Amino acid sequence: MAKAPVLTPRADDFPRWYQDLINKAELADNGPVRGTMVIRPYGYGLWERMQAEMDGRIKETGTQNAYFPLLIPQSYFAREADHVEGFAPELAVVTHGGGKDLEEPAVVRPTSEMIINDYFSKWIQSYRDLPLLINQWANVVRWELRPRLFLRTTEFLWQEGHTAHATFEDARDFAAHIHRQVYEDFMVKVLAMDVVAGRKTVKERFAGAINTLTLEGMMGDGKALQMATSHELGQTFAKAFNTQYLSKEGKQELVWQTSWGSTTRMIGALVMMHGDDNGLRVPPNLAQTQAVVLAIKGDEAVLAKVREIGDQLKAAGVRVQVDDRTDVPFGRRAVDWELKGVPVRIEVGPRDLENGTAMLARRIPGGKEPVALGSLVGLLPKVFEEDQALLLAQSRERRESRTSDVATVEEAVEVAAAGGWARIPWADLGTEGEVRLAEHAVTVRCLVAEDGSVPDSDEQPGNVAVVARAY
Amino acid sequence: MAKAPVLTPRADDFPRWYQDLINKAELADNGPVRGTMVIRPYGYGLWERMQAEMDGRIKETGTQNAYFPLLIPQSYFAREADHVEGFAPELAVVTHGGGKDLEEPAVVRPTSEMIINDYFSKWIQSYRDLPLLINQWANVVRWELRPRLFLRTTEFLWQEGHTAHATFEDARDFAAHIHRQVYEDFMVKVLAMDVVAGRKTVKERFAGAINTLTLEGMMGDGKALQMATSHELGQTFAKAFNTQYLSKEGKQELVWQTSWGSTTRMIGALVMMHGDDNGLRVPPNLAQTQAVVLAIKGDEAVLAKVREIGDQLKAAGVRVQVDDRTDVPFGRRAVDWELKGVPVRIEVGPRDLENGTAMLARRIPGGKEPVALGSLVGLLPKVFEEDQALLLAQSRERRESRTSDVATVEEAVEVAAAGGWARIPWADLGTEGEVRLAEHAVTVRCLVAEDGSVPDSDEQPGNVAVVARAY
Repeated sequence: MAKAPVLTPRADDFPRWYQDLINKAELADNGPVRGTMVIRPYGYGLWERMQAEMDGRIKETGTQNAYFPLLIPQSYFAREADHVEGFAPELAVVTHGGGKDLEEPAVVRPTSEMIINDYFSKWIQSYRDLPLLINQWANVVRWELRPRLFLRTTEFLWQEGHTAHATFEDARDFAAHIHRQVYEDFMVKVLAMDVVAGRKTVKERFAGAINTLTLEGMMGDGKALQMATSHELGQTFAKAFNTQYLSKEGKQELVWQTSWGSTTRMIGALVMMHGDDNGLRVPPNLAQTQAVVLAIKGDEAVLAKVREIGDQLKAAGVRVQVDDRTDVPFGRRAVDWELKGVPVRIEVGPRDLENGTAMLARRIPGGKEPVALGSLVGLLPKVFEEDQALLLAQSRERRESRTSDVATVEEAVEVAAAGGWARIPWADLGTEGEVRLAEHAVTVRCLVAEDGSVPDSDEQPGNVAVVARAY
Repeated sequence: MAKAPVLTPRADDFPRWYQDLINKAELADNGPVRGTMVIRPYGYGLWERMQAEMDGRIKETGTQNAYFPLLIPQSYFAREADHVEGFAPELAVVTHGGGKDLEEPAVVRPTSEMIINDYFSKWIQSYRDLPLLINQWANVVRWELRPRLFLRTTEFLWQEGHTAHATFEDARDFAAHIHRQVYEDFMVKVLAMDVVAGRKTVKERFAGAINTLTLEGMMGDGKALQMATSHELGQTFAKAFNTQYLSKEGKQELVWQTSWGSTTRMIGALVMMHGDDNGLRVPPNLAQTQAVVLAIKGDEAVLAKVREIGDQLKAAGVRVQVDDRTDVPFGRRAVDWELKGVPVRIEVGPRDLENGTAMLARRIPGGKEPVALGSLVGLLPKVFEEDQALLLAQSRERRESRTSDVATVEEAVEVAAAGGWARIPWADLGTEGEVRLAEHAVTVRCLVAEDGSVPDSDEQPGNVAVVARAY
């Protein structure tokens, strides 16, 4: 009799597989208020590693972290028409505080443009104060009617960058730098994810932006997921808040701004991009546990050896965990580490000790083979490098094999419905075609230039629309 | 004519000095919703360093980070009578979400016992699941009628630990371990703060706790500040949520719990403990900028030299910043770094270059002297060690010199009113005396044992009450 699968197979029911994996790998639970989530320690550990890698890259741009209040006076949202229209349906509102009805209700931030710009207008006086480069790590709340863990939750965690610049060009270049050198670099090198970098159409832009840059990833079912966005805000908020600076020439000028964000949704992307029917597969560069050393049995020599191996690997810079919980059956623990996607398992039993070997089980390519104990420290960096490259190659291969060039809206809808991405010249599609796609729940994920670069405008000749169903 | 002071002198008006310093050192601003605050980059940098140092210590105890929702159904607060009574007047309530009135209002968490225990009761099945050790870094909201930046704010940032144990003793020992080995160790070694470790009286306990352990610091004006607390929760929440585990002996037992927290209030303590009339003084072990290298003038040789020194110090592991903004007058920059409390300024001008020296200005003991450029790398670690020890010694000296042993409530009130701490035998004071103190806005900060250790019970013979006015 075949073993019952641990997870619903992806081919049977992808959404169910996703839910199963998140539950069994102990990544998250649903919260009691609709759409909220509890991020469990293993899931939060992934987020902590994402934060560390992103935070370093963000700080290298000269951006500093700060913290702005959760609660924003409701009246602030009336200051910028596009922005308020975009966010009004999603707001959570505090009407009662300290035992009394509030004179003015306070909105739980859905994003912080409104409150941050209020302070930018106070802090910025002269060209010497520019660029002003601020980031914050925070929680935000957007009321979600069809929640899904990590992908769409009423509360989520993110970083949001907000910057002010003296010129249009400075702001444009900074938004582009964040897009490619921070976000894309992190996704490719740490998350081992193939992503397409492009610009959003007017319809898909952030509320208040003059340009939105995006990174789109293809999930295991062929749908697209927006991974992170970087916006040129132009002078939209500068006008709403009258954020001016005294130029070198002694003139009052409005600042040019950007904002950019990436969220806990990336954990959902990690699951759907790299997961398989046995669970998650975590890229070694991200993993908070790159290798686990398992004692197969609880005999003294084995326990001593796994701890010794753990110490050796730790000293060599490997993020390692020792699993000596021999009161739990070995098979159950092995399945559990597989579910959690730890790249390498080093399994040690009494027979291995006799041979001076351990079994090296590799989660990412799969397979298991005995290796000499003395070779582990030298071997693992190469294994991790291979794993990292393999995940990236697999995600690229999936996207390339499932992407088709098409010429009509009908063909694009067909490709998307079959779990693929369609590429169609923007000149042929246009905003009218975009509306027709929407009738089939298909969207333009982004525009890319003919040579694969990010276009400078929607109407740049040769622009191609990448079209798909999306999360 | 004497120079106008940068800050209101402490002796003139301590609260005004505090406010001035926070404003001029750019630590924080008031938020638009009453009692909220904007933590500016320099203030947030202090918090990031606190987080890094605390997080390492917390993880060493085996505790893992997780994240629980901001929004808690209002009905949860009815489950535990003491807890709800303690927090009811401070709650912020979301009544409106996604464009509609909510069926059940949601409370913005003032602390997370209620929601975390809901999950503990699901996750804990057997003794194998214990101890369960969870921490989260989060924002919380407690409506504040008399806000003061960092000290009492409607929203603040903190870490809150929540643990479940199989026995009373395990929980008690863990709460004590956090109290001394995590919190006190961090405060003494990193913040260079003298603190008194003790237990709270019943009156001052956390809502729902059976014991609250505290660390109390004496501020520059002689008032006390509660720096962090660690609570034994007994089975209060285990009963409310029916959190049981199957023991080794096969019996269902209620868990024993702890919770413990420390907040952005520590930044306020840092100001009031170490600040002087010229600004903040940041202990080198905490400082995100331990040394700043200033170019006095913008000539090429000077600029090249300050950058070179910066690189050398960075390579030697010093957290260093180069200040080459020579379009801002040198005097203004020097005053600004002094305000921000950076421990060491290394000032380099054309004349220094000729002599192969720099001026070394030390913020903590004060004073300035020329040093050979080649000696800086060797010198700074010793300077930092001295600075760190000096701040700790000064805070200890202040507390000792302003603490008096007294015998009556009247004397205790007198000492507290004069800006000191009184020590009075708890057997002489008692809960009745505590009520009389409260009439004069004086409180028992904690009970300490005769030998200075933390008492095992309120009524342990020889207990001394430490009595003061407090923030």
